[in-house]
Amino acid sequence: MAEKVNSAAPPMYQWATDLFPIHRSLTGDGVRETLSYIQKLLANLQVHEVPSGTKAFDWTVPKEWVFRYARLEELVDVRGEMVLDLRPAARKSNLHIVQYSTKFMGRVSREELEQHLHSLPDQPDAIPYVTSYYKDDWGFCLTQRQRDALKGDSYFVDIEAELKDGHLTYGELIIPGAEPTEVLLSTNICHPSMGNNELSGPVVVTALAQWLASAPRRHTYRILFLPETIGALVYLSQSNRTIGLNISCSINGRPWLNLDHMKQVIIAGYQVVCCGDTRTYSYLPSRKRTTLADSAAVAAFESLGIDYEWYEFADDRGSDERQWCAPGVDLPIGSIMRSKYGEYPEYHTSLDDLSFISQEGLEGSLKVYQRAIEIIEANRVYKATCIGEPQLGPRGLYQAGGTKEAWAANKNTLNVLAYADGRDLIDLAETIGVDVLECARIAEQLKEHGLLE
Amino acid sequence: MAEKVNSAAPPMYQWATDLFPIHRSLTGDGVRETLSYIQKLLANLQVHEVPSGTKAFDWTVPKEWVFRYARLEELVDVRGEMVLDLRPAARKSNLHIVQYSTKFMGRVSREELEQHLHSLPDQPDAIPYVTSYYKDDWGFCLTQRQRDALKGDSYFVDIEAELKDGHLTYGELIIPGAEPTEVLLSTNICHPSMGNNELSGPVVVTALAQWLASAPRRHTYRILFLPETIGALVYLSQSNRTIGLNISCSINGRPWLNLDHMKQVIIAGYQVVCCGDTRTYSYLPSRKRTTLADSAAVAAFESLGIDYEWYEFADDRGSDERQWCAPGVDLPIGSIMRSKYGEYPEYHTSLDDLSFISQEGLEGSLKVYQRAIEIIEANRVYKATCIGEPQLGPRGLYQAGGTKEAWAANKNTLNVLAYADGRDLIDLAETIGVDVLECARIAEQLKEHGLLE
Amino acid sequence: MAEKVNSAAPPMYQWATDLFPIHRSLTGDGVRETLSYIQKLLANLQVHEVPSGTKAFDWTVPKEWVFRYARLEELVDVRGEMVLDLRPAARKSNLHIVQYSTKFMGRVSREELEQHLHSLPDQPDAIPYVTSYYKDDWGFCLTQRQRDALKGDSYFVDIEAELKDGHLTYGELIIPGAEPTEVLLSTNICHPSMGNNELSGPVVVTALAQWLASAPRRHTYRILFLPETIGALVYLSQSNRTIGLNISCSINGRPWLNLDHMKQVIIAGYQVVCCGDTRTYSYLPSRKRTTLADSAAVAAFESLGIDYEWYEFADDRGSDERQWCAPGVDLPIGSIMRSKYGEYPEYHTSLDDLSFISQEGLEGSLKVYQRAIEIIEANRVYKATCIGEPQLGPRGLYQAGGTKEAWAANKNTLNVLAYADGRDLIDLAETIGVDVLECARIAEQLKEHGLLE
Repeated sequence: MAEKVNSAAPPMYQWATDLFPIHRSLTGDGVRETLSYIQKLLANLQVHEVPSGTKAFDWTVPKEWVFRYARLEELVDVRGEMVLDLRPAARKSNLHIVQYSTKFMGRVSREELEQHLHSLPDQPDAIPYVTSYYKDDWGFCLTQRQRDALKGDSYFVDIEAELKDGHLTYGELIIPGAEPTEVLLSTNICHPSMGNNELSGPVVVTALAQWLASAPRRHTYRILFLPETIGALVYLSQSNRTIGLNISCSINGRPWLNLDHMKQVIIAGYQVVCCGDTRTYSYLPSRKRTTLADSAAVAAFESLGIDYEWYEFADDRGSDERQWCAPGVDLPIGSIMRSKYGEYPEYHTSLDDLSFISQEGLEGSLKVYQRAIEIIEANRVYKATCIGEPQLGPRGLYQAGGTKEAWAANKNTLNVLAYADGRDLIDLAETIGVDVLECARIAEQLKEHGLLE
Repeated sequence: MAEKVNSAAPPMYQWATDLFPIHRSLTGDGVRETLSYIQKLLANLQVHEVPSGTKAFDWTVPKEWVFRYARLEELVDVRGEMVLDLRPAARKSNLHIVQYSTKFMGRVSREELEQHLHSLPDQPDAIPYVTSYYKDDWGFCLTQRQRDALKGDSYFVDIEAELKDGHLTYGELIIPGAEPTEVLLSTNICHPSMGNNELSGPVVVTALAQWLASAPRRHTYRILFLPETIGALVYLSQSNRTIGLNISCSINGRPWLNLDHMKQVIIAGYQVVCCGDTRTYSYLPSRKRTTLADSAAVAAFESLGIDYEWYEFADDRGSDERQWCAPGVDLPIGSIMRSKYGEYPEYHTSLDDLSFISQEGLEGSLKVYQRAIEIIEANRVYKATCIGEPQLGPRGLYQAGGTKEAWAANKNTLNVLAYADGRDLIDLAETIGVDVLECARIAEQLKEHGLLE
Repeated sequence: MAEKVNSAAPPMYQWATDLFPIHRSLTGDGVRETLSYIQKLLANLQVHEVPSGTKAFDWTVPKEWVFRYARLEELVDVRGEMVLDLRPAARKSNLHIVQYSTKFMGRVSREELEQHLHSLPDQPDAIPYVTSYYKDDWGFCLTQRQRDALKGDSYFVDIEAELKDGHLTYGELIIPGAEPTEVLLSTNICHPSMGNNELSGPVVVTALAQWLASAPRRHTYRILFLPETIGALVYLSQSNRTIGLNISCSINGRPWLNLDHMKQVIIAGYQVVCCGDTRTYSYLPSRKRTTLADSAAVAAFESLGIDYEWYEFADDRGSDERQWCAPGVDLPIGSIMRSKYGEYPEYHTSLDDLSFISQEGLEGSLKVYQRAIEIIEANRVYKATCIGEPQLGPRGLYQAGGTKEAWAANKNTLNVLAYADGRDLIDLAETIGVDVLECARIAEQLKEHGLLE
């Protein structure tokens, strides 16, 4: 399928290019800088800060990581020859440092150093992406070629970093709709300089948010920019605040959490991740496999005539749907993706860079998400108001002429009426084999004539 | 499969031959004459007349159409040369006039005439069947060859017809059974001179009614001869009358309609249509696909070893099951057919004549309908009365000898007992892989011995 | 699949060898002698005797059969030449006499004798196993070669047997568990000298009972050694006695039967039959096909990597599951087998002897039954206690290192947590594609850490 770049589409690739150099991690200024950039695109985005040490169910908000610089030198005699220079001005890739590396300065033997190096023998030109969020450690990531070039027995390591009491930072945008029912869109902002996983998610979500805000919507949209795992758990465990008033409710003596609110109102949603390249399309369903998120995603792919890989929650999950769909949370959240995390060789390496993603790839994802949301917006339970078939002709709902097109249109109209028996529109469309948005159009027309309710 | 004409079978083909020349339409004397003929075969058939203008849910009973004669002449100079002479004595086919054509007399240009002509370029010898029930218009149907032979520029049209306040006429026969549960058999009497669609339905229903009345039945049979669509809707919207007393009931301040009654009592039924040729067998299921009508039809075909085409309600419906199965009506009605409407080239043309159907074809349909009804009559929920297997030997229910036949018979008996756990007989027979009527025989025998209830 | 004899396994084949010569039948001293032998292996086995004439639902306990000896002589002139000498000292096979043959002495013609002879033309060296439990008759079983060798016209028959008021004898062992929920293991002790059908069942059940009694169990085990059909029905119809107290309860004015008790407490069970050879494995499911007995058996075969034949209750049943699964009894009972009755040529002949079964074959069955029971014991409904994923690392539940094994272990742990949503362990294990006992291990570990309940 040839995909063309739509000149009217938002410049998602440009946004990704702007955001690429920022050194994001689970916490810290990289996250703040990223959210600040997005706030310029989404004026109503709220940025929240949650202090280190805050409890989030089984987890605790970690200290904030401040990474200043690092050096790795090979000691030739006592003189150091620079192997990796991660001082701000000289830094070539944010991936060279193991994220959340602790402060360290000293001489180490080759043997000791090797315990702290990470490279990929099968991908000799790739720098791997490694984190040590919840374990005090330090380390460097480098290409296999760089590692193979090391010759000395003694090295000098200087990592200037700090783990301090600070905050976890996240962004939240509520776009109110005509109804209180909500759709969740969530993405991660904790990955440093990588393209598909994960600048594609934030820029597609930003584009979706602009589009959602550009017209009245039936449902309310809850849009989250979160650091992975801990961010989702922190968000679920926060007291729910009535939009705008900033007051909190309580229930049964404990605060009314976002978790409680979301279980009440969220009818569907997606963890937006890995949606920037052009190799393929993928879908990872919710744990229950048959929620509205799943049927709408399937209908969106079908409606657009796009083939896709189907993954399984039990075997293949790996992003924040792990939290949204956990027992006790049980939200209907899936993921529409391009090349899925873990399934492409560039994943979690420096090769997943700006050349791996493209405006074309991002627009493809945007299109499927928009279609899925249109389907969720259009999805209703229609019921026939009339006993037996109504007379369509006098209402101008029957196309005369007997052409093939007229016959097909009349058949679709009659089928929408015949199956308006309590099932939802997505089910109805699948049963009668007609595109779901075309069914919605017919149903709304019949509703205007009082034939459906 | 070779099908033989059963000399004991009713002369359905002769009846069709007698009825063929009558000019039936949605309303009028053709319908009355047809019902009058059938009344001679079914003494208790009630003929009802519903006045023009009567409301039937979303519809209204149309005016009655009286067609006296018509002429179409080609004007050569000012002298007319007859193209179509539809005066009673000269009329060759009732299909030549568009049904419900309005009165018209005058000269028309070739161009104007063409707007009122109907023919089939792909079937040059066929006269199409065209109606204009709910739109005031006039027209002629002719073969493509006749049309191609027209040469003049000017024509004289004389249609002597009337749309007058009159009645819609239908026939109703209730054959009371031992139980108030009902089976519906419905067929259409509004088609003029065609064979499969639709003299086959009325004559097969007539034969079924004679057969049903010839012996005591468990269920009550509601047998309807209706003009299509409007007839079904009129029937559903009529006040329900207690059989024989002709008094009407009411509920919640509105009359108790046939609709209300039928929703209470009808357990299965068929729209009998297109059952006169020998090319194939077909089944169109009810909207819900798994009603008793559907399982009994499938079991009947299987019991008789007959292959058939399976159609889908959503894709293929087209007769009064559109009304019987509509939301709000929701009756369990399917159609056992030979060549299905819309699926054979002679459909709705003059080629669907007496040569297209045959006594053999009609008897094939009769046989399947009878088998389906036998299955519906036999279908019960049997329950084992005995804890564990009973002793069959002392009751003479166990065939000794150890032959293959004895072993199979014993196995069937034990299986009927083992699965008499609350499922119905059709389900039981399918589970144990035995013909449903054979299961019924075994079950009744076990019931006589007190082993089932 | 190579199966090795486990030297620690109980000597089931030796037990079968010891029991082989005993002349068991539906009733009588052979049954008593067999149960007495088993009592030496299972000290708590209770032996019950139910008098002839006792009612058991539709059946009656038959008279007890006492077979003393029999002779069949060919009369040459008037001198008899011994054909079959079934006096105790000379008897070569217990199968030579039709079981439950009545007393008879007299001269018979060749023609009359033939009515009382049973042989197998297709298996000329096999003596068939024939019974006449519920019909007064006598007869001899012999090989086709022996039968073909008969030449005389006149024979002398002397059968010294008695049908007397006596008892039906069965064995019952209750092994109490921590919970009152029960698992049923039932086997037949009415077959004379045959190996697979049926000494394999009693010896495997004996080994299972020793194993079950050797450690504390969660469920209670009800273990029955019964004559076929009548034994099961008698057992179901007996008054239920509280374990140890020997008092009986009543309900609604009638005794509280074993039937009533078993319907309350039995969660799964097996009819243990035909489990001694090494040709194949088989499974016959319960009537409902999806009970715990069935899912545990399937999971046991899968857990052990053993292929097996799947049979159907409707087509293939033939042992006491006919009673356990009958409507009104409805227990969840299947059969794990090696070569299934009716499916191997040696079945019900003298060729099903000690050479047909082996210690290896018996141990194979024992292993599958033990695994199925382990699965039933381990099967619980676990529920996650934590909102979202818990932190596994700090609890030592997360394997670091990123090896394939570590990754798989972590995935299994997270999947057990993710699907602990109300389904049982067998369902959970199948959903996430992990061995059920491995799932149980993980779940118990998570429960110890308070993450599941």
